[in-house]
Amino acid sequence: MMIKTFGQPKERYLKIGDDVARMPVWAGELIIKMDMLVGKTDVPKGMRLWQISRKSVVACVSDFAAKGVKPKAVLLSLGLPSNLTLKDVHQLALGFRRTKKEFNVEIIGGDTNESDDLVIDCCMIGFSKKITERKGAKPGDRVIVTGPFGYPSMGLKILQEDLKTDREVRNRSVASVLLPTPKLKLGLEMNKRNLFSSSIDSSDGLAISLHQLSKASGVGFELNQLPVEDDLVKTVKSNDMSIQDIVLYGGEEYEIVATIPEEKMKSALRLVTALGFKLFDIGRVTNKPDRVLFDDGSLRFNVEKKGWIHFS
Amino acid sequence: MMIKTFGQPKERYLKIGDDVARMPVWAGELIIKMDMLVGKTDVPKGMRLWQISRKSVVACVSDFAAKGVKPKAVLLSLGLPSNLTLKDVHQLALGFRRTKKEFNVEIIGGDTNESDDLVIDCCMIGFSKKITERKGAKPGDRVIVTGPFGYPSMGLKILQEDLKTDREVRNRSVASVLLPTPKLKLGLEMNKRNLFSSSIDSSDGLAISLHQLSKASGVGFELNQLPVEDDLVKTVKSNDMSIQDIVLYGGEEYEIVATIPEEKMKSALRLVTALGFKLFDIGRVTNKPDRVLFDDGSLRFNVEKKGWIHFS
Repeated sequence: MMIKTFGQPKERYLKIGDDVARMPVWAGELIIKMDMLVGKTDVPKGMRLWQISRKSVVACVSDFAAKGVKPKAVLLSLGLPSNLTLKDVHQLALGFRRTKKEFNVEIIGGDTNESDDLVIDCCMIGFSKKITERKGAKPGDRVIVTGPFGYPSMGLKILQEDLKTDREVRNRSVASVLLPTPKLKLGLEMNKRNLFSSSIDSSDGLAISLHQLSKASGVGFELNQLPVEDDLVKTVKSNDMSIQDIVLYGGEEYEIVATIPEEKMKSALRLVTALGFKLFDIGRVTNKPDRVLFDDGSLRFNVEKKGWIHFS
Repeated sequence: MMIKTFGQPKERYLKIGDDVARMPVWAGELIIKMDMLVGKTDVPKGMRLWQISRKSVVACVSDFAAKGVKPKAVLLSLGLPSNLTLKDVHQLALGFRRTKKEFNVEIIGGDTNESDDLVIDCCMIGFSKKITERKGAKPGDRVIVTGPFGYPSMGLKILQEDLKTDREVRNRSVASVLLPTPKLKLGLEMNKRNLFSSSIDSSDGLAISLHQLSKASGVGFELNQLPVEDDLVKTVKSNDMSIQDIVLYGGEEYEIVATIPEEKMKSALRLVTALGFKLFDIGRVTNKPDRVLFDDGSLRFNVEKKGWIHFS
């Protein structure tokens, strides 16, 4: 039923139903990513079934965006609890169908099993002559992110704890959780033009991503501002929350965290604007390994290597 | 810790730890398979942790064997119950290390999560100019299997129900469950020489594999013997079990079920013997779609499309 709903891949692939999947090999290197979604830890309150299946694919799209690789195909391994109805499974399949179209990928294979948790393991495949790796940042490079942080943490608080906010912040925050959308186009263009010296996906949160990125390059980061929008700051303050916690240590973020050599900043900014995106220039790369410091002149603290703890 | 135990891949791969895995592309087409092992349904009593992690990879090897494709690399997505100890995780990792060596594959990436069930999702990658598909059997072809069936069913009964048998049957049966070993070398050689007109992996059991294989080719099968060894038949009879049930409707079998054109049988048999393997010629392909018949002159019945029901 699943296959009927989300459809067979195009002719050049082997039809789903043989022992393996087969796809033509393009020039370059094979890029591949597996990401497992587990119901208990990865599905927030209020997320619909088609949004869950979409999210399982989006997690891989986010990594591909950070590396600058176009997704070509996915395989999906499902662990389905026995209490799911046929209608539920159909909803999951509908989510996969939408996702195929949204990201222009083929579903070429997978596996179905029974399990206690809902488990969706997505394996994504692409080809590329070159990717932007985590290592490559040099002292003096700028540290940037591709969007504001904090909305997903706010969205989770709204969904899980029924926090009240004004409508605009609410809509943006909730959408960032239920319909996360990685900056794929932006990542592809930056990689193609060699504009990032290093980059990483931010789904474990900004702080941990900064630590992982700087560690891979053997450098440190010094931030002088947080990537936030005014409306979020206002909401955070009026609810007596900490903006640092929300922005640095929240998770479920689908932005790219990257470094850009100083001399490339101008062309990077021009390109990003032309594409209709926004960059947040949040600091610079230093030669002090293992150190991620925030210092905006008035406030100075070490950014901790704290990751996102799942909402189980 | 996992990576430390099973090791980083060779230099030409991207080291595990970036957002994606990367591998060089060989000539041919990309062959890929995902298979999810779930503790509750796929792990029999008595199976040790390193055997469990090995089995999760073997399930993919079995499909690659049937298609005649050499495995090159795997990615592993893990769902680990929170009550697993570090020692347990180390044992799982040791199993992956052995498996890498046994099948000469690289582990190039994956994902780790917490889940209620133990879940190991293996994604296997290889390259091939040509695979043996499920479709391709022609009326008149011989139906063959690459080994005797029934030992895994017997092994499960020994492990789960403590069935008593003589030592030799016991050892062979239990080993077939705990250390299943697909006929990879045989599958590779048969595919290279174009000897199979169609083939399928048999892990869901002989009956269902015969039905799926014949259906994919739009043909029927007529069997005139069951692929069994005498010692198993003796044990089955002395325990008042049905040899048909054990051989046709059991599961956890890791043989190849295939068809061979009549005129290629001689060279196929010669090759198989030279490689130190054995073929069981169990019947022929007919032009009656949806029909898998057994008829050895004295006994005649329809082989049902009954699959293997997991031992949960």
